[in-house]
Amino acid sequence: MPVLAALERQLQGTRPLDGARVAASGRLTKERAYLLYVLKRAGARLLVADDPEPSHERDGIQRALGAVDYYDPGEPALDVLAGFHPHLLLDNGRLSVEAVSHRAQLGEIVGGTLHSRNAEMVVRRAIAGGQTPGFPLVGVASCPLKEQIETWHGTGQSTVAAIVTATRRQLAGTVVVVVGYGANGRGLASYLRAAHARVVVVERSATAGVLAVYDGMQLAQLETALPIADFVITATGEGDVIRDEHLDLLKDGCVLGNAGRRDGEIRVDDLKARASITRDCGGGVVEYVLSNRRILLLADGRQVNHHCGEGNASDVMDLSLALHVLCLQTLWESPQRYHAGIASVDPADAERVAQIKLHTLGLATSSVGR
Amino acid sequence: MPVLAALERQLQGTRPLDGARVAASGRLTKERAYLLYVLKRAGARLLVADDPEPSHERDGIQRALGAVDYYDPGEPALDVLAGFHPHLLLDNGRLSVEAVSHRAQLGEIVGGTLHSRNAEMVVRRAIAGGQTPGFPLVGVASCPLKEQIETWHGTGQSTVAAIVTATRRQLAGTVVVVVGYGANGRGLASYLRAAHARVVVVERSATAGVLAVYDGMQLAQLETALPIADFVITATGEGDVIRDEHLDLLKDGCVLGNAGRRDGEIRVDDLKARASITRDCGGGVVEYVLSNRRILLLADGRQVNHHCGEGNASDVMDLSLALHVLCLQTLWESPQRYHAGIASVDPADAERVAQIKLHTLGLATSSVGR
Amino acid sequence: MPVLAALERQLQGTRPLDGARVAASGRLTKERAYLLYVLKRAGARLLVADDPEPSHERDGIQRALGAVDYYDPGEPALDVLAGFHPHLLLDNGRLSVEAVSHRAQLGEIVGGTLHSRNAEMVVRRAIAGGQTPGFPLVGVASCPLKEQIETWHGTGQSTVAAIVTATRRQLAGTVVVVVGYGANGRGLASYLRAAHARVVVVERSATAGVLAVYDGMQLAQLETALPIADFVITATGEGDVIRDEHLDLLKDGCVLGNAGRRDGEIRVDDLKARASITRDCGGGVVEYVLSNRRILLLADGRQVNHHCGEGNASDVMDLSLALHVLCLQTLWESPQRYHAGIASVDPADAERVAQIKLHTLGLATSSVGR
Amino acid sequence: MPVLAALERQLQGTRPLDGARVAASGRLTKERAYLLYVLKRAGARLLVADDPEPSHERDGIQRALGAVDYYDPGEPALDVLAGFHPHLLLDNGRLSVEAVSHRAQLGEIVGGTLHSRNAEMVVRRAIAGGQTPGFPLVGVASCPLKEQIETWHGTGQSTVAAIVTATRRQLAGTVVVVVGYGANGRGLASYLRAAHARVVVVERSATAGVLAVYDGMQLAQLETALPIADFVITATGEGDVIRDEHLDLLKDGCVLGNAGRRDGEIRVDDLKARASITRDCGGGVVEYVLSNRRILLLADGRQVNHHCGEGNASDVMDLSLALHVLCLQTLWESPQRYHAGIASVDPADAERVAQIKLHTLGLATSSVGR
Repeated sequence: MPVLAALERQLQGTRPLDGARVAASGRLTKERAYLLYVLKRAGARLLVADDPEPSHERDGIQRALGAVDYYDPGEPALDVLAGFHPHLLLDNGRLSVEAVSHRAQLGEIVGGTLHSRNAEMVVRRAIAGGQTPGFPLVGVASCPLKEQIETWHGTGQSTVAAIVTATRRQLAGTVVVVVGYGANGRGLASYLRAAHARVVVVERSATAGVLAVYDGMQLAQLETALPIADFVITATGEGDVIRDEHLDLLKDGCVLGNAGRRDGEIRVDDLKARASITRDCGGGVVEYVLSNRRILLLADGRQVNHHCGEGNASDVMDLSLALHVLCLQTLWESPQRYHAGIASVDPADAERVAQIKLHTLGLATSSVGR
Repeated sequence: MPVLAALERQLQGTRPLDGARVAASGRLTKERAYLLYVLKRAGARLLVADDPEPSHERDGIQRALGAVDYYDPGEPALDVLAGFHPHLLLDNGRLSVEAVSHRAQLGEIVGGTLHSRNAEMVVRRAIAGGQTPGFPLVGVASCPLKEQIETWHGTGQSTVAAIVTATRRQLAGTVVVVVGYGANGRGLASYLRAAHARVVVVERSATAGVLAVYDGMQLAQLETALPIADFVITATGEGDVIRDEHLDLLKDGCVLGNAGRRDGEIRVDDLKARASITRDCGGGVVEYVLSNRRILLLADGRQVNHHCGEGNASDVMDLSLALHVLCLQTLWESPQRYHAGIASVDPADAERVAQIKLHTLGLATSSVGR
Repeated sequence: MPVLAALERQLQGTRPLDGARVAASGRLTKERAYLLYVLKRAGARLLVADDPEPSHERDGIQRALGAVDYYDPGEPALDVLAGFHPHLLLDNGRLSVEAVSHRAQLGEIVGGTLHSRNAEMVVRRAIAGGQTPGFPLVGVASCPLKEQIETWHGTGQSTVAAIVTATRRQLAGTVVVVVGYGANGRGLASYLRAAHARVVVVERSATAGVLAVYDGMQLAQLETALPIADFVITATGEGDVIRDEHLDLLKDGCVLGNAGRRDGEIRVDDLKARASITRDCGGGVVEYVLSNRRILLLADGRQVNHHCGEGNASDVMDLSLALHVLCLQTLWESPQRYHAGIASVDPADAERVAQIKLHTLGLATSSVGR
Repeated sequence: MPVLAALERQLQGTRPLDGARVAASGRLTKERAYLLYVLKRAGARLLVADDPEPSHERDGIQRALGAVDYYDPGEPALDVLAGFHPHLLLDNGRLSVEAVSHRAQLGEIVGGTLHSRNAEMVVRRAIAGGQTPGFPLVGVASCPLKEQIETWHGTGQSTVAAIVTATRRQLAGTVVVVVGYGANGRGLASYLRAAHARVVVVERSATAGVLAVYDGMQLAQLETALPIADFVITATGEGDVIRDEHLDLLKDGCVLGNAGRRDGEIRVDDLKARASITRDCGGGVVEYVLSNRRILLLADGRQVNHHCGEGNASDVMDLSLALHVLCLQTLWESPQRYHAGIASVDPADAERVAQIKLHTLGLATSSVGR
């Protein structure tokens, strides 16, 4: 994580977040813990969700993170906020919705960052439901440094590697149906095509469908696509994409996996209800034997790159996490640079992250033109 | 142009633009003339820039377009607007700047569409200079249906084909320096890499530079990149990118070309001033013999895909032009759907264009999830 | 042609072909004329086919080539050989077949080179018919420097550029049916796929078909493939691939083209017989209007990269032509290095061409291992 | 392994190998055991090398294989042959060399198949050393069904997946030096480039070097390439490629791995001798801390796709192994179809494997032309 490391070195001297209270949601992975550590070194006081499943690794992470406050993620979000009076949020959506709804009584909040499209959607719904956000919530997911690099390249690479490792099949020559052609599905489809698969895309949006066509993918309806699939990978962000009624359309030996962040895209219970025999093939692959065909499910329907593989490369997460640091710093020092509501990352903040990244690579931009 | 044709069929019955006066800037190519014709069939009254260079083709286009008003593109934009009192603009920037500046006296304008990033930049500068736009100007260039398809795939394909046809060199195995990694440069770089060139990117922005690195391009500074270039292609939208001082850095036989919309990226006069001999090689290629090396210039420094080739494929322009029709219709019928100032294409307008496109291809979207 | 130029400089001093008589068949393009010129400078005496269609260009080429003997390509091959008594052949097949058949009376022949797979096939048939070749005929077409570079990359690039320039269609998003998946078809399919087309392959050989599948192409039978084709490109080397009975299977607007070296892959007469209207669209494209659909034919069914475009890049032909020079030199100096019959290029001869090529690029190999 | 399964079904009825004694060398993986089982079902009597490391898995494989003879792989090859009097060999080279040398006393041998390029090289050396092979040894490695599919696609995919899983680094944007550009290195380089890495190739052969250049790779000498490498992957088939003197050229954090079949490409002892600290990072990655830099070694220098990953996909091995079955059948039934010495797979044998493969995929070839 060289960008976060560079930020740590820069900010521990100037401590721009001195006095700021930051409430964070989400699981404490090693990478996110380092983000929090950098915020702490920059002067922030932190409130962090405790991990519901104590483990050896969690203890090590908490020790490395040092003195911070913890809250029980099961506690109502409003109580969490009311008890800590945060200035800044670093959030997967849950805290922000409550903060927007109860802004009056949590008057010290100056803004926050949202980690994913899902988080933005949750907040957007609250706003559409009548809530007026009085402060900026910066969605880092649409910043090119996250969308093009982590969501596209990062997830593309890690998902393909996880599928290959788990199934030990040659993707070249197979038909892979990718359901959903947002940034996530598009990156994955691009990596699958580069691995010489034939990619068939199923999409709800015509705009995304036209993109898929011009990218060289075959666009088809779900019912037409499933019978020719060697693999079906969901990446919609929606629930119940593959359900009981679809199972009869699949070929014998078809592999089902989910590349979306959300767990319920494949209704695993429908598969289990239909299976006469279940066989664990190892590596996160379970074979369900239906009356006249076998279906292989990856990672029990959870995100395949995380649960059949090692997740995204740390250097691409480094870029996304560094965006949080600089956006939070800007929200604290110059909140007027972001408008209230869901805001995009200020290009100047993205540019600063990118400059540090190029510096760590020994590369530089070039003045061009006059 | 199947999408425009479908719109023509739809709108000639309902005539949603009845009563609307539309002022258009820009050259009357066959494709743009068809767009104007569709607007006319939809009920609009048109004011169109006359072509400064009368030709046989221009006569045919004007005949096909039928009864519209023309103005001399040399006339001051304000006079043009004041004489026609347009409701809607279809613009490359020049009319919009005046319309924003003199909104009070041109009170009937309800909005307009901007065809390119350049047009948006020109208007943005006027706004930054203190002008308050009182109406929406919809920038279609950032809509995925234009940016990802025409700017990326369209320009990528047409520029590569033009370079190959003009130079008759195998791109595989050469080093191509692409200066500028916006949507235009990025699409071009991607097509060059797919043709097995080694692409070296020069960029002013660190954010774009990091994207180039993760896309597999080599990022370098201009002075380091030029000496290894077999081709140098500019795509910055800026002027004076390749100047006198750069010529000594180039290899013997290096090819210079411009893929940007603007003409002055390569300072052709600097090249001419240095050349002892000039030789027309045909196909838009001119060889300049400097004291100790030969430099080949494509299309006299103008946009290479248009001047050494046939420009973008008509089916990708079809999508972009159809966006104008639907955005203008929305501006006329439901202007509140766009906010004042530079606005993005409403996803619903893009979706309608995409639906027609899929329909002409015999394809369809698929309901997914619940 | 830097490799031929380097050979010219090397061989004009040592004149290794002094005393050798070389009989050449085939058309006198600029590139092939340079090959012959290098052989002449190396000491050979040449007999060259005169061009049946005198032209301004042919005069220039003959002047540049200087004093050589010419024969009328309509003259029987045996008479040509009997009149010149060649030691070496540089051939498209016709001379070799006669030379093999009448070796006894043409006793001075020590060997020859064959330029194409087609030439090899013709000679192979003569051998299969009972002729015993008493000397080596080196097939350069299967040497990686020709097969992988000129046939694959060269034809791939030039065919795609010719199709794009002639039709002005975006290949991204279209379905291109490639009939034939030899080196020619495989290179073309690879370049089309890189341009984001969906490629459907039709093949007679199961081995080539399995390669197509693993390369990510869709394999289909001709009758299934034609109805979904936006483009049909033949590359089989066989005749009568697309015939009358196939025309009814094509979509309205489908484009037909031939990428094979042989002209009769598309039965143009069948198309003409069915067309009620014929329209020249320029650029080598002719539209045939059948009763209920329009078919566009490229280059009148002749090789599309040559007749709608500029043919292969000269730097890839340079490699192939240089192979002839070194193989002929070896046949003259050390004939025992090649066995009688159709022989492969000796890796040492290929290596020498490749070394010169790398030298002209300023590149070098590296000793590796111990 | 659907092709082997289809062969099993076909051959267990006709038993074409009845009476044939087949001696096999090499390790008893699950895949190779199935090949042997199919030979047994086809009537052959087998002699198989026993695994030197008894394990639970080996017991299962041997049980499934059933009654066959075993020999100790440590026993001299000549003794093995003399004791069994095989008709056919299925070999990694060791048995064949002895069989060629002592053909007189092992007169019943009619031929064999060689599994790898390495095996062919070993036998070629024996022949060059004066041995006259009196029977055919068919090298399956150069058959397109193995070279293009298993060596290119198979190893490309499995090596990239293994590197990604082991190092958890994003390949996009990194510089990967591939040493060796044979079929193995070329396939790997192609997969790495498709994953958006920048690939630098080091080669000893100019011919392979020119191919690398035209494929879009950067060709460099080892000493120039190493200092810019994020990864160095050897694929030469030679020993001692990366040695002590190269370690000082590497960047801090550089990853070393071997994709070649042979173990000694990276001199691991040199690395160990220089390291002050050694740290096991898990997943087959060991970090060696030299005085001023850290070097990461994959799989202890052994073939990375096998030792950091799952090896090649079984469906690509299926094709290669099926080639052995049909070549051995042809050698037994129609030995005259193969000439004595190292022979290529008869296209008819390859075609039969390919036909079965297409049949298992539900695909078919198409008659084309007349």
